[in-house]
Amino acid sequence: MEINDLLYKESEWLKGIGPKSDIVLSSRVRLARNLADHRFFNQASNEERIKIRQEIMEGFKNVKALKGTTTINIGEISDVDRDFLVERHLMSIEHTEDGDAKAIVFDDKEMLSIMVNEEDHLRIQVLQSGFNILNAWSVINKLDDEIAEVIKYSFSDELGYLTACPTNLGTGLRASLMIHLPALVLTNQVGKVFEAISKLGLTMRGLYGEGTEATGDMFQISNQVTLGHSETELIESIARLIEKIINREATTREMIMTKNKTEVQDKVWRSLGTLKSARIITSNETITLLSVIRMGVNLGIIKGLDLRTVNELFILLQPAHLQKMEKRNLNPEERDRKRAELIREKLKKVEE
Amino acid sequence: MEINDLLYKESEWLKGIGPKSDIVLSSRVRLARNLADHRFFNQASNEERIKIRQEIMEGFKNVKALKGTTTINIGEISDVDRDFLVERHLMSIEHTEDGDAKAIVFDDKEMLSIMVNEEDHLRIQVLQSGFNILNAWSVINKLDDEIAEVIKYSFSDELGYLTACPTNLGTGLRASLMIHLPALVLTNQVGKVFEAISKLGLTMRGLYGEGTEATGDMFQISNQVTLGHSETELIESIARLIEKIINREATTREMIMTKNKTEVQDKVWRSLGTLKSARIITSNETITLLSVIRMGVNLGIIKGLDLRTVNELFILLQPAHLQKMEKRNLNPEERDRKRAELIREKLKKVEE
Repeated sequence: MEINDLLYKESEWLKGIGPKSDIVLSSRVRLARNLADHRFFNQASNEERIKIRQEIMEGFKNVKALKGTTTINIGEISDVDRDFLVERHLMSIEHTEDGDAKAIVFDDKEMLSIMVNEEDHLRIQVLQSGFNILNAWSVINKLDDEIAEVIKYSFSDELGYLTACPTNLGTGLRASLMIHLPALVLTNQVGKVFEAISKLGLTMRGLYGEGTEATGDMFQISNQVTLGHSETELIESIARLIEKIINREATTREMIMTKNKTEVQDKVWRSLGTLKSARIITSNETITLLSVIRMGVNLGIIKGLDLRTVNELFILLQPAHLQKMEKRNLNPEERDRKRAELIREKLKKVEE
Repeated sequence: MEINDLLYKESEWLKGIGPKSDIVLSSRVRLARNLADHRFFNQASNEERIKIRQEIMEGFKNVKALKGTTTINIGEISDVDRDFLVERHLMSIEHTEDGDAKAIVFDDKEMLSIMVNEEDHLRIQVLQSGFNILNAWSVINKLDDEIAEVIKYSFSDELGYLTACPTNLGTGLRASLMIHLPALVLTNQVGKVFEAISKLGLTMRGLYGEGTEATGDMFQISNQVTLGHSETELIESIARLIEKIINREATTREMIMTKNKTEVQDKVWRSLGTLKSARIITSNETITLLSVIRMGVNLGIIKGLDLRTVNELFILLQPAHLQKMEKRNLNPEERDRKRAELIREKLKKVEE
């Protein structure tokens, strides 16, 4: 598979399927792992980094679960392609820099991706559609076991998996759920949710990862603590919390559809009207409007538009995606026009 | 003719025809006149006021130009009907109050209307579509001559026509043009226009008459001075100024379509998108958006929508019109919904 093949392909996690997919976009688990006989990435010379990558890729040949996956050396691809892989949530922004010894491995469905030589030697990720965190954990757990048979992990009986940054020590596990909370935002309840999350040692961030603002009522909730609990405990604890948030969002959606139906309809239809009409549109405005439309689809206000198309637009509207579609570099103004064009095309047939 | 007949009838001045109708909506001339042998309205008793009305209506029977017109006694109609007549620009807000001895006379085309017992005994008005102020003057001048043959006006050789308020003294003439200046507003040139107007003894007001803010880039320009110049001089002076403003607006429209085409298109299509989608909309927002759409029609951006429909919407969106369409009183929230419904219906077939 080539990077370009991804462009018009549908990622599994964007399908809008899976449990509670009206509220939970995706469930992700990632594990941080390092090779026992090497220095951490940031302490290793370029030579050693390349050796690390070679050993990993050699080992992967014997991992059944990785059959048919694609491997790309980050140093060998263009800037736009790197950004493109970030936009598809296959790798982190950090992984785009200093790419010489870095690689990425991913499967056709984009459910599985492994960053080689990110902050840790291995960052293994499994991404699923909807509220599927237990399943994602079970998949990644098996994969991790398989990899452990061919690669000797850096592990301490006392501390667990050793990682470059102490915040990942122990399990090396981070579970993240991308959730859509338009009703809680509309009714100013997100602050309370945020408080509850913080007390449980979890964090809440914006759509595009660490340090980003929440845009379009999309939030990423993930665990902070990786040490002192088993993986299952961590996963189950976040799952319990997410379940509560889901219930609260669902109840609030019902409530606003009872008490403020016309106002909500007005907001939903106006957002669709703007997206179907605009000739210039920024990504921030698009995300905000798409978020409202996603709610409108889930509340049964907009018919004839599926979550899949809405989810897909969240990905396609991004700069590198637009540039790959146009097959050339675009300046911000050109992107705002191309984005508007793309959205109009995708939403053309949706009845108002 | 009944008031209700007006509702689904097209006023002549809304047809979007006449010279320069892309910039000038309407041209209006009104004359203030009083009966020689009576006190001014505000000094007259109710008895005298009723006598004034009787004498006027008696006289009107012999005025050929008033054949087939409708007469309505303001005291005999509902509040909504009064507001409705104001919204159609047939009479002033002041004419709705203290209605006992007040009447209004208008023709089927709503080009001619006469308020009886407003501030002055007679306020005669001729309203035409487009930049037609000279023609409006010629029509009202003949009508005034005809009326003068049956009613003895209060007139002084030294001062001219005597009026209740000295600001109308002399000619009793006010010429007003409703003009649409979206390009001048967009490029911040309205301030300059306003300055030029003030220096010439003219005023510039909002869409809905004295004391209202300019909404939707619509302005009413009219003369302040009524004394010391002949009627023809007053009319020609305002016509010359309007011509200059029209040219400036037209040049600016061309300029922005050259330099900022996509931005203008974006603004126009978004405005249409919002109007076609909203489920709740205030009159202010509607006016602002309709104004942009009117520009879009004139610039050839929106096809398949005529000025007539746009002009008509400016009138229909008003509270009394909405209530007469629904045949019941509506509270502001109900009006905002009904307005949105009406607009969607009217613009349904306009392609985006």
